Amino acid sequence: MAHREALTYREVGVDHAAISRSLRGFLRAVHPPRPSGHGRLKLGPGHFSGLLQVGRETLAITTDGVGTKVLLAEQLDRWEEVGEDLVAVNVNDLSAVGARPLALLDYLAMPRPEERVLRAIGRGVGRGLRRAGCGLVGGETAVVPELHRAPDLSGTALGYFPPGRPPVTGERIRPGDVALGLPSSGFHANGYTLVRRLVERAGLSLRSPLPGGGLPLGRRLLAPSRIYTRALEALLAERLPVGLAHVTGGGARNLARLNPKVGFRLDGWPPPRGLFRWVADLSGLGAEDLYQTFNMGVGFVVVVRPSHVDRARGVLARSGERNVSILGRAVASPGVHLSGLGVRYEGY
Amino acid sequence: MAHREALTYREVGVDHAAISRSLRGFLRAVHPPRPSGHGRLKLGPGHFSGLLQVGRETLAITTDGVGTKVLLAEQLDRWEEVGEDLVAVNVNDLSAVGARPLALLDYLAMPRPEERVLRAIGRGVGRGLRRAGCGLVGGETAVVPELHRAPDLSGTALGYFPPGRPPVTGERIRPGDVALGLPSSGFHANGYTLVRRLVERAGLSLRSPLPGGGLPLGRRLLAPSRIYTRALEALLAERLPVGLAHVTGGGARNLARLNPKVGFRLDGWPPPRGLFRWVADLSGLGAEDLYQTFNMGVGFVVVVRPSHVDRARGVLARSGERNVSILGRAVASPGVHLSGLGVRYEGY
Repeated sequence: MAHREALTYREVGVDHAAISRSLRGFLRAVHPPRPSGHGRLKLGPGHFSGLLQVGRETLAITTDGVGTKVLLAEQLDRWEEVGEDLVAVNVNDLSAVGARPLALLDYLAMPRPEERVLRAIGRGVGRGLRRAGCGLVGGETAVVPELHRAPDLSGTALGYFPPGRPPVTGERIRPGDVALGLPSSGFHANGYTLVRRLVERAGLSLRSPLPGGGLPLGRRLLAPSRIYTRALEALLAERLPVGLAHVTGGGARNLARLNPKVGFRLDGWPPPRGLFRWVADLSGLGAEDLYQTFNMGVGFVVVVRPSHVDRARGVLARSGERNVSILGRAVASPGVHLSGLGVRYEGY
Repeated sequence: MAHREALTYREVGVDHAAISRSLRGFLRAVHPPRPSGHGRLKLGPGHFSGLLQVGRETLAITTDGVGTKVLLAEQLDRWEEVGEDLVAVNVNDLSAVGARPLALLDYLAMPRPEERVLRAIGRGVGRGLRRAGCGLVGGETAVVPELHRAPDLSGTALGYFPPGRPPVTGERIRPGDVALGLPSSGFHANGYTLVRRLVERAGLSLRSPLPGGGLPLGRRLLAPSRIYTRALEALLAERLPVGLAHVTGGGARNLARLNPKVGFRLDGWPPPRGLFRWVADLSGLGAEDLYQTFNMGVGFVVVVRPSHVDRARGVLARSGERNVSILGRAVASPGVHLSGLGVRYEGY
């Protein structure tokens, strides 16, 4: 495909700097108390999930939404996939601190109460919950045409740590540890504002397959996020991970969230393939932008000691993860270095 | 004020029946697993908060939003109050099962990242959290102009039960038990779609005071919801409540959520006064609609044994609740009967 003028996130109207600045202002203004005693906070905003302590139990909790992927669902009038995404974006964040998903609460905000749409979302949420072994303990549906243009699907998930399992925050990572990548199923729930603009700019039909055939483009783009609970529970039961990352917005940069004292030198993050090759060609973006916008084929990263690599791969294979890649290693200097691609990210 | 044609919720475009139908369809489609073992569900959607068990700890969790009150905040460009509401709508739902608030996660969805607005919301959230003694453990800010017309503020709160304190679900309520009402500060976060239409229809200025003087109408309407944590913690420490209700959408009907085997005969719910008299006159609504749309002066209900009424009132007075009203009593027949007003609600 011919090279095109690059379209970055800033150009499609997502101003990450302004959002970060506003969010910092919000957090500074809140100045919340830190409860102590029988119930207390262990780890606040910033990591994949917050950690709480109640008596002898450690709990993990996180909140996230599906974002603009719902606009694609609306165009195709297919809602099950984004229902499943709503579960995935949250339970994978729980797995990324080593917690086992226990319960989800959904927040569905929409302009109209469409029974058919809500049933389809419900089927997808149910499928995601069953994959994660996670219950549903509450939720809220806000139907307010003056607030919402299209259904916004978000939720909160609570997880716990089975007896004897400590949280995995990444603080134990040492230089030399090995990063393993679990394959994604596509863009998961990130990068869709850009993807939709690219499709529009190129005048592509969501109903036609990509060159090479297969499912129509829209269906490929809508593929639900993978849910890594089963694989992670198997690894965590054997206490193998020393670091975990859910590869969401920020792509490979997510690894910079784990431990400020180490960095990663990765030469094994896959080159653009399939849908990622397609988006690379269509967008004209360079590797630096691509690997911080999309997961580029890796949906979840597990860091293990070098001596545990084979055991971890065996456990993963038995839990159904047969295409695990060795991404690279932790190093003493901070930042994430995709050495094969000549890309270096200093932080998250 | 002259009597006007009544404006009900259905007429302003809030079709509760369609929303309930869609929500039932969603829940039926989800069909979630029920995790068992070290972590398990105790009480699912339907009560004020869901209940979970992790090891020996019982946890309460709930999710809710501020709703269309944000549109009033936007008109007045004042955001602190709705920030405080975001905390209130959630922590009061925790108190309504007897839990102590531990941590909030916010979900702020908006069309633009306005730093000044987010800072003001943050100040309000902080004030609410300090009133509730509740921490902040996470959150998500979604800035998507294609999804959101105005800032939608929602969140999730997690609470716990200090050792020796059981949850209060209402199942212990017996006929003869006494319902006490804690005053509200205004409409809290319910009924604003109707209120805004009434103001618009009557051509009232939000900048002018109501007849009788005081703050401008807009400021009165924007008053933040009361947070009842302090009063409830004092009552719960003495194990006095057998039933609790946060009076939200549904007004007095909320009491029908407590125990299917009993009802309430209430002759002490205050008559329309102040802001509630104003909305009664302006809307032309009868008592039946008024008391199921607005809290009508009572923001939280505490049910105690008849022999504990004086002690409960003493504890409440010492925690700052000096205008507690005796609403009435639990009776053997289900439903909520506002006997002085000739209104009877069969269920929630």
